[in-house]
Amino acid sequence: LKSPDRGTPAATGEHARIRRILNRLPPAPAALVVGPGDDAAVWEAPRGTLQVLTTDALVEGVHFDRRLTSPADIGYRALAVNISDVAAMGGAPHLALLSLALPDGITSEVLDGLVDGLLDMAAEANVSLAGGNITHTPGPLLLDVTVVGSVKPRKVLRRAGAQPGDFIYVTGALGAAAAGLGWLRDAPEGDIPSAEPADAEMAACVARYRRPSPRTRIGTLLGRSRVASACMDLSDGLGDAVRQVSEASGTGAWLDAAALPIPGGARRWFASRGEDPLEAASVSDDYELLFTVPRRRLGRLRHVAREARGVPLTRIGEVTKGRSIEIRDGERRLPLPSGYEHFRKP
Amino acid sequence: LKSPDRGTPAATGEHARIRRILNRLPPAPAALVVGPGDDAAVWEAPRGTLQVLTTDALVEGVHFDRRLTSPADIGYRALAVNISDVAAMGGAPHLALLSLALPDGITSEVLDGLVDGLLDMAAEANVSLAGGNITHTPGPLLLDVTVVGSVKPRKVLRRAGAQPGDFIYVTGALGAAAAGLGWLRDAPEGDIPSAEPADAEMAACVARYRRPSPRTRIGTLLGRSRVASACMDLSDGLGDAVRQVSEASGTGAWLDAAALPIPGGARRWFASRGEDPLEAASVSDDYELLFTVPRRRLGRLRHVAREARGVPLTRIGEVTKGRSIEIRDGERRLPLPSGYEHFRKP
Repeated sequence: LKSPDRGTPAATGEHARIRRILNRLPPAPAALVVGPGDDAAVWEAPRGTLQVLTTDALVEGVHFDRRLTSPADIGYRALAVNISDVAAMGGAPHLALLSLALPDGITSEVLDGLVDGLLDMAAEANVSLAGGNITHTPGPLLLDVTVVGSVKPRKVLRRAGAQPGDFIYVTGALGAAAAGLGWLRDAPEGDIPSAEPADAEMAACVARYRRPSPRTRIGTLLGRSRVASACMDLSDGLGDAVRQVSEASGTGAWLDAAALPIPGGARRWFASRGEDPLEAASVSDDYELLFTVPRRRLGRLRHVAREARGVPLTRIGEVTKGRSIEIRDGERRLPLPSGYEHFRKP
Repeated sequence: LKSPDRGTPAATGEHARIRRILNRLPPAPAALVVGPGDDAAVWEAPRGTLQVLTTDALVEGVHFDRRLTSPADIGYRALAVNISDVAAMGGAPHLALLSLALPDGITSEVLDGLVDGLLDMAAEANVSLAGGNITHTPGPLLLDVTVVGSVKPRKVLRRAGAQPGDFIYVTGALGAAAAGLGWLRDAPEGDIPSAEPADAEMAACVARYRRPSPRTRIGTLLGRSRVASACMDLSDGLGDAVRQVSEASGTGAWLDAAALPIPGGARRWFASRGEDPLEAASVSDDYELLFTVPRRRLGRLRHVAREARGVPLTRIGEVTKGRSIEIRDGERRLPLPSGYEHFRKP
């Protein structure tokens, strides 16, 4: 956070905003040689590592709706989605840069919320906010986050590398985020961003939507142990991930509908709305990892599963030679749902 | 550029847009272990270096006006302003990530222009586009660029470090960008983004506004030679830079009005508009470097000047003990103009 707002006459107000953010930061680690407040951050990467770099933006009205999601949850998510990308490469996240475009009418309270939510995620993932910038915008609120991580050479997880016969796994649960967002969209007027469903399983889905858990621990375990032949995060849903991994690897895939770890709360929610759970779960942005495992590595996978601290690893299908991608639902063969909208205006 | 547009139903269109960008990229260097197209980029930093990291966004209607600036010049600038920040730390830039928020109506031609301009700057600075993302936005066009560079330990240039008695220098020329933008704002209707002033000196100012030259070579020379006690780029103008360096260093400064390297074309432009050249030049975003030099290092500075390939290094003032900042114009003592708008709607 190096400079005042560029582009508004109220530069002093923006100076104050940056000070406000800087005051909220925990002490920087020694590896951050120059932290926020200079022209750029300077960082010493862990010895013998490669750097992992990713950037992703959240735009109001496209990726989130402030009527449904609190500023803190928006800030949390903006960092989580990027950490998830680092995890999907087998990397450990270290630093974040935050680029904020603020429309008129963003109060100090909203700004504090955005930053505090981002810092919550940063603390959970042991990430330091190393810099960024604030600008005014005549358009919607936009948070663009860059995350820098590290990975050991030859421990990098790519999308390409799946081989026919490899098993396909996912971490955690599928469809929870979509069900949680659905519940928020249908929630009665009031303070929706902090509303809680009475049903505990539904509440878990809402929590999942509000604060996705990037799978950094499992990502690094998969990379280090060389268990996975390919890996990708589910930022655009299961359908998109299976398609991308297949395309990058030059393979096809089938998935077992009955094996998909769709939680009961999500299943019931989709059913109550007349939605096909399979389809709804396939386009849910759960930020889980999809990965493929050669059969000879299943022994090592058990080690990873034991270290996964309760996050389930579920076998959901198999990589195939052909280029087709299908779901097997008993005797039925269904095409995999594709297409995805992060956010549809309610 | 790892993923389709998130947030529009026209995902296939966005897939095509990403392919379109990827097709324009030159071959990646070997250090880019994983380039665009995966969850994140993976990069091997030069051995024995620290990583320099910065991000800055350009927003339509705030930092640029598409009626005045071509897509290629917008793309060029979006990367140049970030490279300038790396240069101001004494770093060499290596990689860029591009986060694009595209409103409706951005044609392939405009997208190609943005990317080609960015790649022009990338080629000049030996930078590789390593990744990024594209999203739809209901708001203005926004380009957020992250640049990653490297610097040797103990060769880092900070804003803090200036000592009373140090001389203050700037690279290149001051005020050219502001004069160039002024000319474009007053240009007659027609194809303003490619219009050329008849006056050669004015044309140089317009060129300077359109394609700022980040001072990477001089930045790394200043860092390596340990000539500069403090350094910052003029992204928000001379006045802001002097103030920031003084604040970070706990010093004051005086500048010699007669010494400011304001080119003749810019002086004449400001005069013709009834603007004070001093004031106009102080708030011009020229992306030059401001740096301070202890007197005992003046010998080494001459070496740097010889290696600067024709970019002038001009002494413009001195660091002082007090905390005041003033301009000396003959016998007059003026406060330094502050405040800055990158872009004011014409």
